[in-house]
Amino acid sequence: MERPLILVSNDDSYRAPGARYLVDRLLKLGDVVCVCPEHPQSGQSMALTVNSPLRITELPDYNGAKMYHVSGTPVDCIKLAMHHILDRRPALVATGINHGSNSAINVLYSGTMGAAMEGAAFGIPSIGFSLTDHSWEADFSPCLRAIDILCEAALKYRMPVDTALNVNVPNIKTEPKGMKICVPCRGLWNDEYKEYLDPYGRKFYWLTGQFENLEPDNRETDEWALAHELVSVVPVGIERTAGSVPQIDWLPEAIERYNTELKR
Amino acid sequence: MERPLILVSNDDSYRAPGARYLVDRLLKLGDVVCVCPEHPQSGQSMALTVNSPLRITELPDYNGAKMYHVSGTPVDCIKLAMHHILDRRPALVATGINHGSNSAINVLYSGTMGAAMEGAAFGIPSIGFSLTDHSWEADFSPCLRAIDILCEAALKYRMPVDTALNVNVPNIKTEPKGMKICVPCRGLWNDEYKEYLDPYGRKFYWLTGQFENLEPDNRETDEWALAHELVSVVPVGIERTAGSVPQIDWLPEAIERYNTELKR
Repeated sequence: MERPLILVSNDDSYRAPGARYLVDRLLKLGDVVCVCPEHPQSGQSMALTVNSPLRITELPDYNGAKMYHVSGTPVDCIKLAMHHILDRRPALVATGINHGSNSAINVLYSGTMGAAMEGAAFGIPSIGFSLTDHSWEADFSPCLRAIDILCEAALKYRMPVDTALNVNVPNIKTEPKGMKICVPCRGLWNDEYKEYLDPYGRKFYWLTGQFENLEPDNRETDEWALAHELVSVVPVGIERTAGSVPQIDWLPEAIERYNTELKR
Repeated sequence: MERPLILVSNDDSYRAPGARYLVDRLLKLGDVVCVCPEHPQSGQSMALTVNSPLRITELPDYNGAKMYHVSGTPVDCIKLAMHHILDRRPALVATGINHGSNSAINVLYSGTMGAAMEGAAFGIPSIGFSLTDHSWEADFSPCLRAIDILCEAALKYRMPVDTALNVNVPNIKTEPKGMKICVPCRGLWNDEYKEYLDPYGRKFYWLTGQFENLEPDNRETDEWALAHELVSVVPVGIERTAGSVPQIDWLPEAIERYNTELKR
């Protein structure tokens, strides 16, 4: 039987160790094609390139996975993969592993989640993975079991229409204590720009800031889960409109499986 | 009494006639500050700039409105306006008028709607306006009454948390036949890239394509409304997760007012 095709992308570029970790895990589940941006695209949300051309560059295979980079955004990667790279329809789009959290309001700006939403817009089961560690040398092993269980279940049971998963893994040196379906934490960024003077006395600004959690006691949020060493799973709708995100029937069972395996 | 402060932005740049048309309408309702991207940012969604600095440039006033451009995305414009330009909190964020439709799935990619969502993320009533005409010389007068009525109502009654309005106006030479609350039409883009060869024989790609309406007979969609010369109003949630977008209590009344005024 043909192995399922899995498309991997991210926003940290094809050089990111997080993408390669994800590819390595997914090679156990299917054939993997990895199409990542040529340059880092953090904060690119669902941006796409309309006013300039794009290039696709084939790279050497990585452990049996086909590798490409695209000279655009994460959404450009998914669109070009679907139209000009892949020779059959993927059964799963997996993005990340993002170097850094995409919990709470960050899901709106994340290019890694933008790529997952674009996968969902194509009607493909799509999951974005993030580790709450920005370091290029991050240890991605806390993500291992969440990737295996969620991707296997998504391949088997698929996903409701217009829905993706936003999976965040706490940056702890041991295995997370469990996995939990969450809502995105309400919060905002404060002091968002650092102000500078250029050598000619003109001001410029650079984005920064601290996340302020507006509901620290709400145990349903992704921030709460991560603070308690749990993997957070947030179902994300791409329709951005009236009507709720559909229930994902298999998700409670996958989470139970994760939590049960931990107890062994 | 102090006039309400209204923040205007867009994705077509500070040069776009659509922004100036919107400013002119809103000057009747309050003090207006217009902060637009320096360069066109179509398709920038909620992208923000993290890996480079940003500049704010003050421009000459326009009909009494303060004008600025920012060297980044529409979301950068809203964030910098909130943190470094405005001297008080705006009562309304109005974006557009976009040169071209932001109906259906386009809401996901639109920079004009990205700016409106960012306004909503700041907890400010936010409305994005688009005219289904890409021309730089478009006639924006079909938008007039929708801007007046919706912005006046949003200033008076505000908006539920995390919710913005996506307003699309049909490109017709006369007044639209009415205004309608809609759902975004399900659809997709086909044949999305035109393929070229550069002078050295290497391929490159440019985004294009046709929108395919997957539910042409559904009278609830924005595409149906626009095809029938109605203004479409889609409430858009920014939370992108389980749970429906809240009802906007005043919206049916504003729409009734619009439609009643037309009949006179």
